[in-house]
Amino acid sequence: MGEDGYFKPQMRKVPTGELMQPSRKTNGYGVQAEDTRICVVMVGLPARGKSLIAQKVVRYLGWLSIPAKTFNVGQYRRSNTPTPTAEFFDTSNAEGERLRRAAAEAAVDDMIRWFAAGSGTIAILDATNSTKDRRRWIQERCDAEGIETLFVESKCDDEDLIMSNILEVKTTSPDYKGQDPEKAAQDFRNRIKNYEKVYETIDEDESHMTYVKLINVGKQVIINRIQDYLQSRVVYYLMNLHIKPRSIWLSRHGESNFNLSGQIGGDADISDRGEAYARRLPELVKQSAGDRELTTARFLEYEKLEWKALDELDSGVCDGLTYAEIAEQYPEDFKQRDDDKYNYRYLGGESYRDVVIRLEPIIMELERSENILIVTHQAILRCIYAYFMNVPQERSPWMEVPLHTLIKLTPKAYSTIEERLKADIPAVSTFREKGSLAKHQ
Amino acid sequence: MGEDGYFKPQMRKVPTGELMQPSRKTNGYGVQAEDTRICVVMVGLPARGKSLIAQKVVRYLGWLSIPAKTFNVGQYRRSNTPTPTAEFFDTSNAEGERLRRAAAEAAVDDMIRWFAAGSGTIAILDATNSTKDRRRWIQERCDAEGIETLFVESKCDDEDLIMSNILEVKTTSPDYKGQDPEKAAQDFRNRIKNYEKVYETIDEDESHMTYVKLINVGKQVIINRIQDYLQSRVVYYLMNLHIKPRSIWLSRHGESNFNLSGQIGGDADISDRGEAYARRLPELVKQSAGDRELTTARFLEYEKLEWKALDELDSGVCDGLTYAEIAEQYPEDFKQRDDDKYNYRYLGGESYRDVVIRLEPIIMELERSENILIVTHQAILRCIYAYFMNVPQERSPWMEVPLHTLIKLTPKAYSTIEERLKADIPAVSTFREKGSLAKHQ
Repeated sequence: MGEDGYFKPQMRKVPTGELMQPSRKTNGYGVQAEDTRICVVMVGLPARGKSLIAQKVVRYLGWLSIPAKTFNVGQYRRSNTPTPTAEFFDTSNAEGERLRRAAAEAAVDDMIRWFAAGSGTIAILDATNSTKDRRRWIQERCDAEGIETLFVESKCDDEDLIMSNILEVKTTSPDYKGQDPEKAAQDFRNRIKNYEKVYETIDEDESHMTYVKLINVGKQVIINRIQDYLQSRVVYYLMNLHIKPRSIWLSRHGESNFNLSGQIGGDADISDRGEAYARRLPELVKQSAGDRELTTARFLEYEKLEWKALDELDSGVCDGLTYAEIAEQYPEDFKQRDDDKYNYRYLGGESYRDVVIRLEPIIMELERSENILIVTHQAILRCIYAYFMNVPQERSPWMEVPLHTLIKLTPKAYSTIEERLKADIPAVSTFREKGSLAKHQ
Repeated sequence: MGEDGYFKPQMRKVPTGELMQPSRKTNGYGVQAEDTRICVVMVGLPARGKSLIAQKVVRYLGWLSIPAKTFNVGQYRRSNTPTPTAEFFDTSNAEGERLRRAAAEAAVDDMIRWFAAGSGTIAILDATNSTKDRRRWIQERCDAEGIETLFVESKCDDEDLIMSNILEVKTTSPDYKGQDPEKAAQDFRNRIKNYEKVYETIDEDESHMTYVKLINVGKQVIINRIQDYLQSRVVYYLMNLHIKPRSIWLSRHGESNFNLSGQIGGDADISDRGEAYARRLPELVKQSAGDRELTTARFLEYEKLEWKALDELDSGVCDGLTYAEIAEQYPEDFKQRDDDKYNYRYLGGESYRDVVIRLEPIIMELERSENILIVTHQAILRCIYAYFMNVPQERSPWMEVPLHTLIKLTPKAYSTIEERLKADIPAVSTFREKGSLAKHQ
């Protein structure tokens, strides 16, 4: 009885027998049942941002150490039909229908195997899943395996949004590789028309299902029968998404006196050069902003907020020490941190994992926000950067985030564009390679 | 530039001039604009749980140190019409209409004054607000003051739910004080009928508004145009509510060897008596459970989870010390903690305020759950208990939560019933009064 636990007397669907996952402590970010396994089933016409949403959810969950994976039916279909024309998607095309069904089955089979292997928590089935029949079939397959389903329908009647999705697809989809973009766009429009013929939105007939309908991403959300904590977290994330174009600017504080002396910790005065950088920063942001951003954003009339959750990683007893002093006074800790920097928690302080947990609301706010500049500390920037750029946990704590440098991230449908602007103001390096003690490498 | 901050170039509605609130750092629980002021406008027929929802939201926000207050139009109306009959609510009754309108105006005026006084963040306007006209009027009043609106409509077609609300009202509403319960219920039904004649649900005409529709609390939720972080937090809380009857059992761990020696901290072995309590606990829960709970919950087939977020308050450098040792080694800290126990953060550790922040997801899960038993540490139980029993921050860290005692909380519409069962197994007291050093007072 030495542990925190609770008895939850209500009954839940649990998979019977051999598929039980190993017990898993939650990481403090939240609460979830040990055996929760969810299949997020995307629903919607082509060009409604389904793959974009799927990819964002997987990245978000991965950042939170929740094992998630996308199963894209289109990829399975391409193994038999690499470059289909719109006719392939005509429901009166029996052979096309058979091949598309086979692709869906292959994806679901793989997903079930992935869950059975024991390490997965959330799978995303990325396909149109546009008929009630198809959704019923998925629901039944998941029920049989004790996998919860969460249907996520993306509806969109905003022509601009759809067009920008079509443009994105014609230039990026492997289905149109090497083809004339104009022809590709036209064919893709025809493909959408074929889907429209059979498309059935989720309605009252399916009110027994757990689902979310996203209408014009970010405008209206309908949520039905959310069952448990993890589902509600995913839904909360989906609620906060928008797809307006914007950029996120990241910068460390100007150089501090601790930076100069090689001490770690977050609460030191700024150096003269750091002060100069702080004064230069608005100009740098202006330089890096495109015309459109400048015109619409009116950079000089910014609103400024302070977030406690952006405090530097708490180095506990090591606060104010140099790396050399840490290596001398806490040699074992120093080594442990090098061995697993993401999980190492400073004595009386925090780990990168802890920081990610407290940054989660910030990420949610960043998803909600439009153009935004964040000025904060090295470890915090690493975690935020890792979220947007999908940097794995082994690497994120070791990334170089130099002083006096502005980073501009611009999320696009399937990637994030990064630009770096170095201010013309010298600063020390605070980067430390694994195994080194280096003050100013 | 020594602080964490960001520039947010997009424009927001801000109140002009003298009404600006004092700058307020967020408490780490999340992020919110300094000047956010939201009027949550309840919408719905009588007996749809509006006041219950309003009261829960206020309690939740208060627990998170977000200043919130309910303005109940019924209370204003009672100042001119203390015990109205159903006829008063007939829209063809011009005098009734005038008085009800006056009550709404008085409530809105008071709300605006409350915001203007500078300390409020979220006001809840608790009334039926059942016509589009009325809602437009509220929206305009708020717009004029730079107050955001969030309409929350509670719809319910579940007759059992409505009836249980009617039964609750007839026994608790001041409108029917001292009256025959059967007559009261009948009159209340007639009142509802009068509202039904004019009731207009929120629909497409109001799609420019920020709103949430709760359908049969917890079953379906429709969310429209959520604008900012704080709104999205309130909506997330609303999403997680349900009103099925249930109880929450709370217990500390069995007595530990640290408890015996008077040391603080969360990670010690359990004593023999503590072990005996752990073995007795399931029996205690059974004893305290009603027949219905026993039948439906099947207590012996519980599911058990572990939550990292339930770890004891981190006492940092004081972990493992007795209070006498703390007073000797950290005399200033000892005094500071006595002066403001809620906000005092142990060196390298946590404050009660920090604990509340990390418990927030737990509260969300508790709102979602049905019958549940939580076994955890003293400070953590104090915070959870404070949430359910609405204990103010000055008092919550000083509450007695004795060892070897099971607490059962049963949320009702307007209160939470508390029962305590002492196990017949002795344990030391770990309670310390302000100013005392007492090992085992």
